[in-house]
Amino acid sequence: MKKYLFAPGPTPIPPEVIQSMSDAVVHHRAPDFLPILEEVREGLKWIFQCNNEVLIFASSGTGAMEGAVTNTLSRGDRALVVRGGKFGERWTGICQAYGVEAKNIDVPWGEAVDPSEIKKALQADPGIKAVLFQASETSTGVAHPVKEIAGIVRNYENTLCILDAITGIGVFDIPMDKWGIDIVVGGSQKALMLPAGLAFAAVSDKAWKFVSKSNLPKYYFNFNKELKNLQKNQTAYTPAVTLILGLRQSLRMLRAEGLEGIFARHETLASATRAAVKAMGLELFAKSPSNAVTAVNAPQGVDGQKIVKGLRDKFKITIAGGQDKLKGKIFRIAHLGFYDRFDIIMILSAIESVLKDLGFNVPPGKGADAAQKILDGVQKPAVCEIK
Amino acid sequence: MKKYLFAPGPTPIPPEVIQSMSDAVVHHRAPDFLPILEEVREGLKWIFQCNNEVLIFASSGTGAMEGAVTNTLSRGDRALVVRGGKFGERWTGICQAYGVEAKNIDVPWGEAVDPSEIKKALQADPGIKAVLFQASETSTGVAHPVKEIAGIVRNYENTLCILDAITGIGVFDIPMDKWGIDIVVGGSQKALMLPAGLAFAAVSDKAWKFVSKSNLPKYYFNFNKELKNLQKNQTAYTPAVTLILGLRQSLRMLRAEGLEGIFARHETLASATRAAVKAMGLELFAKSPSNAVTAVNAPQGVDGQKIVKGLRDKFKITIAGGQDKLKGKIFRIAHLGFYDRFDIIMILSAIESVLKDLGFNVPPGKGADAAQKILDGVQKPAVCEIK
Repeated sequence: MKKYLFAPGPTPIPPEVIQSMSDAVVHHRAPDFLPILEEVREGLKWIFQCNNEVLIFASSGTGAMEGAVTNTLSRGDRALVVRGGKFGERWTGICQAYGVEAKNIDVPWGEAVDPSEIKKALQADPGIKAVLFQASETSTGVAHPVKEIAGIVRNYENTLCILDAITGIGVFDIPMDKWGIDIVVGGSQKALMLPAGLAFAAVSDKAWKFVSKSNLPKYYFNFNKELKNLQKNQTAYTPAVTLILGLRQSLRMLRAEGLEGIFARHETLASATRAAVKAMGLELFAKSPSNAVTAVNAPQGVDGQKIVKGLRDKFKITIAGGQDKLKGKIFRIAHLGFYDRFDIIMILSAIESVLKDLGFNVPPGKGADAAQKILDGVQKPAVCEIK
Repeated sequence: MKKYLFAPGPTPIPPEVIQSMSDAVVHHRAPDFLPILEEVREGLKWIFQCNNEVLIFASSGTGAMEGAVTNTLSRGDRALVVRGGKFGERWTGICQAYGVEAKNIDVPWGEAVDPSEIKKALQADPGIKAVLFQASETSTGVAHPVKEIAGIVRNYENTLCILDAITGIGVFDIPMDKWGIDIVVGGSQKALMLPAGLAFAAVSDKAWKFVSKSNLPKYYFNFNKELKNLQKNQTAYTPAVTLILGLRQSLRMLRAEGLEGIFARHETLASATRAAVKAMGLELFAKSPSNAVTAVNAPQGVDGQKIVKGLRDKFKITIAGGQDKLKGKIFRIAHLGFYDRFDIIMILSAIESVLKDLGFNVPPGKGADAAQKILDGVQKPAVCEIK
């Protein structure tokens, strides 16, 4: 029976990428690896939209988040954390683990942070060394206003703008250099269409100055060491070679599509999903929805976990449910990475079927029709909410 | 043209393992993943020869080495480091990064540590919290006397025996529980026949007591958090799912061979390589050679780097040269992981050919003949030097 993956990471892998990872293992210190790493380094700068080197780690995305804190901050520093979901909480956890004081802006789950809150917090305490937030908070499906936040933080010479864009890079436009973001963290198993196991950190010149002053301990996630090695076109420790081979291939595919094409694709698929869900009589959970994943309220009287289970049991489809306090209350449909219009049609059809089984009356065909209009370009996708 | 990999990691991947990693991506929180992780957890306990859970990290082996220090020690602690090569130096570097005082036992490169040095050091300073060393120091091809060192350290209630067995696990016998080793670190890209990207840490009951007292900061490599998740049959962060699928397959292959079979295979291939190299008129570099990799002195007047380059240019064979102060002085032939007798015959034939090109007079056929005798069981392999 066919299996389908619609979770916000790991996401499906294109056959060309699978094939490229099945090549004979290349030794990471042998000359064969040099052009591979060189091409990957260039491709990463392109997709991160930055001039500086993008650091590559063999780890989950969390590892690069930890590195973003431990390489730039020092013991006793204060950091402002936008905490509006599980991944916001992760920033707080990392700060606490390393003796950095996390000043949390608690945002109700499902809402985006109001940038004026960040402005106020920085005005009240200009000694804050970093603002830590998510481009796309995967647990709630919310997109935070990256551009506005970056615009505020860049006025503070002694404050870094540190962005977890693990589910943002390759989904929507985050021109790092242009907007003045200082660190952008990414991961392989999202829009880059790879298995989990690679994490990335793009680092601005301003952030590199912080690195030279940081006194927090680090070893494996040492930014300076990685940079020095990358500049010699190698990595500090044994890289995850097969994933880097896959990354070269997925970057080639993405470059062929172009940044505009990639962002438009995600916007179209996300808009179609949102329009369809509303037409089916359902409500979006996120007030400011991300183009990476659509979080939907389980309809009254229906347990969200049963929707997840129904899709799995009936169709071998994996979507994500709600986490922690959202357990049973929402379900999440991913559309970041290797998806096209027909994937959207099929997941909508599957959800319609499962909701009917659970006794929720879906107006037949309405969802697919609403999606189709957007997919066909008859109706414009809703304006992208990322500010 | 065929390519051949004879470096001490990454090592070649069996086709069955490549195939298993090309399966459709499984979501790590979906029920499909549960039996996979369960089987892998059992398999790891088997190959690490321990009853406790073996922690799994998406990282290079170095990450788990860092975790072994940061999860058991505290700021200002003293650790005894056996420093007899690049990887011994890595223990020192990790300690220094985290404010642990490394007391180094400097062992000449190419020699194994004398266990009585460790005995003396612990007698002189029983406050030492850990002894950090390698089972197999890959940079020099030396096997350290694991059993004897563990036997000494286990007499000290407040001292842990922490072993980097990245190139030891699955090569020679390291019965962790039986010998009383407290932490054994492993990596995927060695005898486990996988690409790089997974690191392991097996942790004894004694070490878990240290974990509860350790005050060094950690987040991504947090042993407690990983343990709690593994006990629920999941991982703390997104695991490198494809590598775990590959690991399930490679563990199945290794289990079919059995521990004794695995160790005998490595001993035979290593002994055959050593005997052949000597018969060719070359000298072993390591006084106490490891069955993972054979380090050979470049013959007088021949630059070791030219041997490496010759093999690469003439035959597309990757072996390792010497690192740092051994650059140009030695070359290293790996035989850990997915190798069999015919791989040994071919690498010997290739080396003979390249040495002739470089003007070194190899007595024809002598190397292959010496290897063949051991491979055929006509002559017993030399007694394994691991004590």
